Amino acid sequence: MDTHTLDDTMRQLGARARKAARQVARADDRTKSAALRAMAERLRERKDWLQAENAKDLEAAKRNGLEPALIDRLTLSDKALALMAAGLEQIAAMPDPVGELTETRLRPNGMQVARMRVPLGVIAIVYESRPNVTIDAAALCLKSGNAAILRGGSEAIHSNTALGLIVRAGLEAAGLPADAVQVVETTDRAAVGKLATMTEYVDVIVPRGGKGLIKRLSEEAKVPVIKHLDGICHVYVDRDADLAKAQAIAFNAKTYRYGICGAMETLLVHADVAPAFLPPMSRAFIEHGVELRGCERTRAIVPEAVPASEEDWATEYLAPILSVKIVDDIGQAIHHIETYGSQHTDAIVTESLAAARRFQREVDSSSVYVNLPTCFADGYEYGLGAEIGISTNKLHARGPVGLEGLTTLKWVLTGDGQTRG
Amino acid sequence: MDTHTLDDTMRQLGARARKAARQVARADDRTKSAALRAMAERLRERKDWLQAENAKDLEAAKRNGLEPALIDRLTLSDKALALMAAGLEQIAAMPDPVGELTETRLRPNGMQVARMRVPLGVIAIVYESRPNVTIDAAALCLKSGNAAILRGGSEAIHSNTALGLIVRAGLEAAGLPADAVQVVETTDRAAVGKLATMTEYVDVIVPRGGKGLIKRLSEEAKVPVIKHLDGICHVYVDRDADLAKAQAIAFNAKTYRYGICGAMETLLVHADVAPAFLPPMSRAFIEHGVELRGCERTRAIVPEAVPASEEDWATEYLAPILSVKIVDDIGQAIHHIETYGSQHTDAIVTESLAAARRFQREVDSSSVYVNLPTCFADGYEYGLGAEIGISTNKLHARGPVGLEGLTTLKWVLTGDGQTRG
Repeated sequence: MDTHTLDDTMRQLGARARKAARQVARADDRTKSAALRAMAERLRERKDWLQAENAKDLEAAKRNGLEPALIDRLTLSDKALALMAAGLEQIAAMPDPVGELTETRLRPNGMQVARMRVPLGVIAIVYESRPNVTIDAAALCLKSGNAAILRGGSEAIHSNTALGLIVRAGLEAAGLPADAVQVVETTDRAAVGKLATMTEYVDVIVPRGGKGLIKRLSEEAKVPVIKHLDGICHVYVDRDADLAKAQAIAFNAKTYRYGICGAMETLLVHADVAPAFLPPMSRAFIEHGVELRGCERTRAIVPEAVPASEEDWATEYLAPILSVKIVDDIGQAIHHIETYGSQHTDAIVTESLAAARRFQREVDSSSVYVNLPTCFADGYEYGLGAEIGISTNKLHARGPVGLEGLTTLKWVLTGDGQTRG
Repeated sequence: MDTHTLDDTMRQLGARARKAARQVARADDRTKSAALRAMAERLRERKDWLQAENAKDLEAAKRNGLEPALIDRLTLSDKALALMAAGLEQIAAMPDPVGELTETRLRPNGMQVARMRVPLGVIAIVYESRPNVTIDAAALCLKSGNAAILRGGSEAIHSNTALGLIVRAGLEAAGLPADAVQVVETTDRAAVGKLATMTEYVDVIVPRGGKGLIKRLSEEAKVPVIKHLDGICHVYVDRDADLAKAQAIAFNAKTYRYGICGAMETLLVHADVAPAFLPPMSRAFIEHGVELRGCERTRAIVPEAVPASEEDWATEYLAPILSVKIVDDIGQAIHHIETYGSQHTDAIVTESLAAARRFQREVDSSSVYVNLPTCFADGYEYGLGAEIGISTNKLHARGPVGLEGLTTLKWVLTGDGQTRG
């Protein structure tokens, strides 16, 4: 598509989203939830057609030699579709965040001051191969009263376009504007750049996917970006740790799933407990196929570990590799996390209340755990019911982002003709 | 200063701020408040010296032919200094926002999930001639546990440097690091650009001052900016308005102070009440020296009004000028505000509950009022105790920004060795 046409297309799409956003912001929860349930129904009814559309993407993926893991993510299996439909119904059943009034107070002059939770407006989501994001993101945006612009990966274009039609039909069935959720149908990469700079039509952009996508998008963006770049998560085993607990936590943090952003990448161990803790811990990792890279002091205890380089401490492996460092005290552990961490999720294992309090207060990450593995970093686990992603931003949503992160608070003041001065 | 030197200077300043930020984040409220009271004491004790330093700026200002209003703002009079000292003591007495735990819940597996309010880290404030901002901003940042980098206007450099020394002495008296509040002493404009792009050292930047400064800074910034650009505030007089109340509210909204961002710039009037409302309202404005610019229908009722151009609707006058438009219904009023407004503060005057509810829900501004003049847009009036500025951002702080807007929430999870999956 030439630049001029793309520009026009995206601006028109943005203007339609802005208009629809005003309508869904006003919609009551009964209507929004009816639309979500209508989508679930259609997902089930039109399964064969969806799988036929999905097959086009799968054939192309195989022709292009996509990795099996990616093909797996791309596949709309019976199970994947059933989970998507169930997810829609779950989000429909959640309480509506919109309209909540908080911090209501009467001022001395009798005027009432309060904050009202309202939608952000138009949310753009940019993602890679998983077509289920089309449904999840549409549902979260709609439930929170926002319009959505969805831009999936080109390798899922047929699947996403088909899912977009299901969403549209669900919206219309409930009497909501079909433009409340639009799937970008051009595979032109410049479309992402447009979304990230159309500040008049897009209120926030959420990139989900690889680091390359997120980095590029953050650099271009004029629209606020809810994101995290890296998940270099640490578990620190304190001098006062229960070592059996520490082993279970560290093992789970690394091996629950290697590819998630909450996976532990560096294990920090207090020097006093390292001789007792590291030998059995290392054996468990090595038996499980995890490669260990250690500091010199670690290697003196764990000869199987290869030397860790400076770069290792700053690397998100997302793989069965773990860097291990021995520290002299909790202060050194916190300093290491400050220096190399990504402010995502970090954990301490300790039975000491003082150490737990200090770690939780001082570590400047979006989530800070005591006696829990970092792989709990997930909106469902926190009780948010659903999540659009995890943010390491400090402003607005931080950590797992649920429905509330897709809303904002405005001030509403009500009086009876009070004047100032 | 050459680019290389400036770069070094600013990076060193940033690194010192980051280090101090960790220390003030840990400080308890007793210590922070003691520092604020020590500053107040020194402001009073060193009044003569401060006024001598201030005199240097005032002389230069007069030599350079600064406007009397600006010279007035620049002056550290006895009264101005007394107010600054009282402000410090007020902020010292406010509750500490840091450390508050909210939304604490137990998950089914027994782990506890909560959110902890914590400082943002390093806050940069860029402002123009008013030296009192040096004290206000320092106090708000310190109370909320942040380090501050303050960059005032070059015309106040002697005053700000002197106030910076007072702040430093107060910090040291309480045992806090002096670098927790740094005043940028170079008047090089490029320093502002550096502050706005040093993402590793600055967590948020707050520009206070003219639109030119804010626009330029927002364009350059890589650091999140808490700001508002325009305050094009509307009062809409509904069909169901009490007209006496409407007149008092509209008059106050325009005339309380012409130069504040909450001043009304456009008056919207329902066609049904315009013939009764506009003649006495116009007389009151004209007698007070307010120039009226009206739409055609307004001019048919108010012949003294000059024709309003398309540009008028989009202009923040900050002056005794008011644009007036007659609309057919509340929907048209909301549409006008959506089209020309700046999402700052907008008000409806009505006795109709339905109209009030609709206006407050649908108008997408940071503050939406019923039966109150827009000039109430101020943190003190809202009960925030103090304010660093007003934000029209949708993300993070929206509307008047008090101590809470200088903090963020992180997730803290505490368990007993629970694992996932």
